[in-house]
Amino acid sequence: MVIGHLKHMQLVITAVGPDHVRLADPIIHYVTGEGANIAEIQMYDHDEEALFAMLLRVQLPAEKLGDVRKALSQIARETNLSIRLWSPEERAEKPRLAICVTYRPEPPLALLRAIRDGQIKAEAAVLIGNRPACRGIAEQFGVPWEMVGDDDGRTDEDRFIATLDSYEIDYVVLARYMRVLPAATCWKYAGGRIINLHHGLLPSFPGLRPYHDAYAGRMLTYGATCHFIVPELDAGNQIIQQSTFTVPPGTKLDEIIRVGQEDNEPRCLVEGVRRAVSREVQLHFHRVVVGSGVRN
Amino acid sequence: MVIGHLKHMQLVITAVGPDHVRLADPIIHYVTGEGANIAEIQMYDHDEEALFAMLLRVQLPAEKLGDVRKALSQIARETNLSIRLWSPEERAEKPRLAICVTYRPEPPLALLRAIRDGQIKAEAAVLIGNRPACRGIAEQFGVPWEMVGDDDGRTDEDRFIATLDSYEIDYVVLARYMRVLPAATCWKYAGGRIINLHHGLLPSFPGLRPYHDAYAGRMLTYGATCHFIVPELDAGNQIIQQSTFTVPPGTKLDEIIRVGQEDNEPRCLVEGVRRAVSREVQLHFHRVVVGSGVRN
Amino acid sequence: MVIGHLKHMQLVITAVGPDHVRLADPIIHYVTGEGANIAEIQMYDHDEEALFAMLLRVQLPAEKLGDVRKALSQIARETNLSIRLWSPEERAEKPRLAICVTYRPEPPLALLRAIRDGQIKAEAAVLIGNRPACRGIAEQFGVPWEMVGDDDGRTDEDRFIATLDSYEIDYVVLARYMRVLPAATCWKYAGGRIINLHHGLLPSFPGLRPYHDAYAGRMLTYGATCHFIVPELDAGNQIIQQSTFTVPPGTKLDEIIRVGQEDNEPRCLVEGVRRAVSREVQLHFHRVVVGSGVRN
Amino acid sequence: MVIGHLKHMQLVITAVGPDHVRLADPIIHYVTGEGANIAEIQMYDHDEEALFAMLLRVQLPAEKLGDVRKALSQIARETNLSIRLWSPEERAEKPRLAICVTYRPEPPLALLRAIRDGQIKAEAAVLIGNRPACRGIAEQFGVPWEMVGDDDGRTDEDRFIATLDSYEIDYVVLARYMRVLPAATCWKYAGGRIINLHHGLLPSFPGLRPYHDAYAGRMLTYGATCHFIVPELDAGNQIIQQSTFTVPPGTKLDEIIRVGQEDNEPRCLVEGVRRAVSREVQLHFHRVVVGSGVRN
Repeated sequence: MVIGHLKHMQLVITAVGPDHVRLADPIIHYVTGEGANIAEIQMYDHDEEALFAMLLRVQLPAEKLGDVRKALSQIARETNLSIRLWSPEERAEKPRLAICVTYRPEPPLALLRAIRDGQIKAEAAVLIGNRPACRGIAEQFGVPWEMVGDDDGRTDEDRFIATLDSYEIDYVVLARYMRVLPAATCWKYAGGRIINLHHGLLPSFPGLRPYHDAYAGRMLTYGATCHFIVPELDAGNQIIQQSTFTVPPGTKLDEIIRVGQEDNEPRCLVEGVRRAVSREVQLHFHRVVVGSGVRN
Repeated sequence: MVIGHLKHMQLVITAVGPDHVRLADPIIHYVTGEGANIAEIQMYDHDEEALFAMLLRVQLPAEKLGDVRKALSQIARETNLSIRLWSPEERAEKPRLAICVTYRPEPPLALLRAIRDGQIKAEAAVLIGNRPACRGIAEQFGVPWEMVGDDDGRTDEDRFIATLDSYEIDYVVLARYMRVLPAATCWKYAGGRIINLHHGLLPSFPGLRPYHDAYAGRMLTYGATCHFIVPELDAGNQIIQQSTFTVPPGTKLDEIIRVGQEDNEPRCLVEGVRRAVSREVQLHFHRVVVGSGVRN
Repeated sequence: MVIGHLKHMQLVITAVGPDHVRLADPIIHYVTGEGANIAEIQMYDHDEEALFAMLLRVQLPAEKLGDVRKALSQIARETNLSIRLWSPEERAEKPRLAICVTYRPEPPLALLRAIRDGQIKAEAAVLIGNRPACRGIAEQFGVPWEMVGDDDGRTDEDRFIATLDSYEIDYVVLARYMRVLPAATCWKYAGGRIINLHHGLLPSFPGLRPYHDAYAGRMLTYGATCHFIVPELDAGNQIIQQSTFTVPPGTKLDEIIRVGQEDNEPRCLVEGVRRAVSREVQLHFHRVVVGSGVRN
Repeated sequence: MVIGHLKHMQLVITAVGPDHVRLADPIIHYVTGEGANIAEIQMYDHDEEALFAMLLRVQLPAEKLGDVRKALSQIARETNLSIRLWSPEERAEKPRLAICVTYRPEPPLALLRAIRDGQIKAEAAVLIGNRPACRGIAEQFGVPWEMVGDDDGRTDEDRFIATLDSYEIDYVVLARYMRVLPAATCWKYAGGRIINLHHGLLPSFPGLRPYHDAYAGRMLTYGATCHFIVPELDAGNQIIQQSTFTVPPGTKLDEIIRVGQEDNEPRCLVEGVRRAVSREVQLHFHRVVVGSGVRN
């Protein structure tokens, strides 16, 4: 976007801290002082867990990016807030992905093949697991492997975030990663940067066992959903892609799950990630909207 | 099925009356006296509307069919009950269908073409409308047309039932017929003889506007459901066939409805009716089970 | 009820077995032969677990009760079905209760006090626990104690049923008994004989943690529900009594649960059991209807 | 609240306009320039209806109130935004209420009596109707009456807002006012200023016929809910007060509705309004929190 004679850039700033009183003021004061146009602000508090978060989306002349980064670092030091700055336009040609996995190999495999074959224009920067099961896939494709789980698969969330930061990740892809991201993590990478594969049709079948739930309802249709994660909200408005298959009456649940996991889920994830990283779709005020591609 | 040296036949007997006290006794007494094996009995009362109903499924030697029909007619005369006898095996090779319609022409057209082309082995005995909109379709395919609605589309239910009876209908197909069947009608043709096309995925999207409801949930998956009607129950366990399609984000509702009505719904109905009339699936204790075809 | 010159009695017959083919015929044949009027029949199959069940409610001259009992015993022996005969009228003045418990002492205590004080006209025939926690209550009130759980609280269902049978129980009261009754058990004591206390408002808050669920929805109203158990159905139509309390915003969950458990739940159970055993309410075709008291 | 030596005041600023680009910048720039501490910001877009809205809650030295009001008026003129400034502390001793009604007389009558008797410390500034039915109540209590509906009860929304503005209303009470407030109206009076009486228990029974819905579920508990209106969200987290009553099985729906309307609903509304206007409860990040009364 060009405003006046200056090329403007979209910046997404997130801030997370333990107190809402001093959360917004220094950042807002700084960016409005720099002439930023505010496109979106959201503030949330989770007083039960002493977590306060803000998302700020602004337009700023592109050449100010370096200064803003420096200034926000200083604000972070002074205020003890966890502040992040991201522009979807910086690496728009080849955004960097973190692919997060637990047990199922099919979704990361499908993703890595689609990246290798140019179907998804992105770089697989790192494979992150909370279990060791998919390590071999990282080796097979020559992608760095980072293990963030303990012996029971519990994720060290600080290490998870530090890994995303150090690999300079643009998009986090949860490829059947079987851990719920805590709200603080979601906020730190808010703004349409976390893409999840859910193995059921949303919003009808949330939960941990969507195949079983649909089967219990004697459905003949099964599906998967690829969606942005928005921490405060049910994933209703954030759907990027859905894939389905139907079976005849009498089909056993085992067979349904097998088809879903081996064929339908990977297909859904690949198309969903493709849409998101190509900016065909974007998150705008908690909703998926159709974007104009990488060069907007 | 052959029990001993006699060929046995499955009979479905339904009885509907205004009082539960004398509903069951005479029929049960008679059929057990004739040596019938009772496979299923259901009784229901709707005391708010003074409607009592019974479904009885029995196995009886095939040669007794005529006698049973006569005896039940007499019981009906004596008790003032509305009694019906049906065997899925009598016209199993070519069951007679009543196709019920309101406005949408695509579902009946798809059905009539599938019957003409031999994809569905059945006879289109009559087209029944509560609105005149589909009359031309009946003429085009040379099928009798019966109008059962008044100027506001309200169905004369007695005439509706009388029409089904007089055409000796095996299966009633509701092909986007936009009237709720009253409980008495459902009971009179109970036992897996009424097949409905719902224009949404069940059980997630019941109601009159399933496209709008799924769209409001920002879903990208839309579907149709073909199911048996069971009067007391939600259509959860009675699903015969589901068909789906998915759209990219940003697709307009109008376009979604167009694809659903013109392509997806007719496809769903044809396959659902094929499964039911070929006895690939049957209704058994309120549930769809896989049958062994017409010659079981 | 008096039909002709004979005093008629209501009988509830339940039969449970592993096969639906021979479930209904012998019993129905016998009772219709004895001149019974059939008021209600329900048959169900659970083919996944090879369980077939029938409930039969009939009117029969009172003096035939002994003969019927003998004949059904013989049918049970011949067919290997589990058959039970019960009349709500036999011990209508003072029905015998089994009070089933796990941990919470308040509900059984409230019930035993209400029986002692004549508020509930019934006999506390036995206290049944799947955990030893409430044993002292049985001793305090001089009621037999039967332990049916193993070290992990898992109930021996055969022993549970045998206990009910041997104490000649009319009504089974689940007083915060924390085990789901299997379908076979529900059917054996079907017909409005099993009364459950649920610690949430039904149908809105089913499940194991209704206080937490209502609290998560930021509700200010909490309640308990006393209902008949009907195995095939959600407890929607079977509600006997509900009790509620409301709290001001900011009330802690701990305090809500304390008030609910110590005050609201016991109150709900006492009134619910009073209504059921006095026959103020009865189960009729899966629904609670208002009865005419013990002398109808 | 006193920050440094200055008495600070809480201000709620709302802005509504047809475009999100210039919505936030001028207001935020101005108030941060004046040294305001931002406590909460929410921005929303409704691109389907070209409605963009912002809520800003700040702390500012009390003596600046006049200047801020003037400055915001000027921004409103320059930007064509609809901007409102409100402080809950200005008239905290006796806030001004608009009581909005349609047909039911009981809720406004109960409210006016509670205000007259000092139970609710507030001033009934105006009675607003979209139907003429409650006009006599305004006359009886000497409260101005404003009619905002046409012959079919459709509200002129501009006139509705203008009425609220001209009477300098602090809180809008919807006392069985049977119109859905459009999103623009909700935003203009956002921040915990609109209090609704719903005639069912939320979140279980939303919709237009909660008595009928609960009755259809055979519930024995009926209730009413008093809640803040938050335009984007279901009324789940915004509950101020709930009142309930229970009935014995067999109670007729007519009788239930009568008790609910004549006794339970008015009682619920009075206590809910008392809590809100006394600042016992406040809206904070979309949630009801316990406040510290009028003098915090």
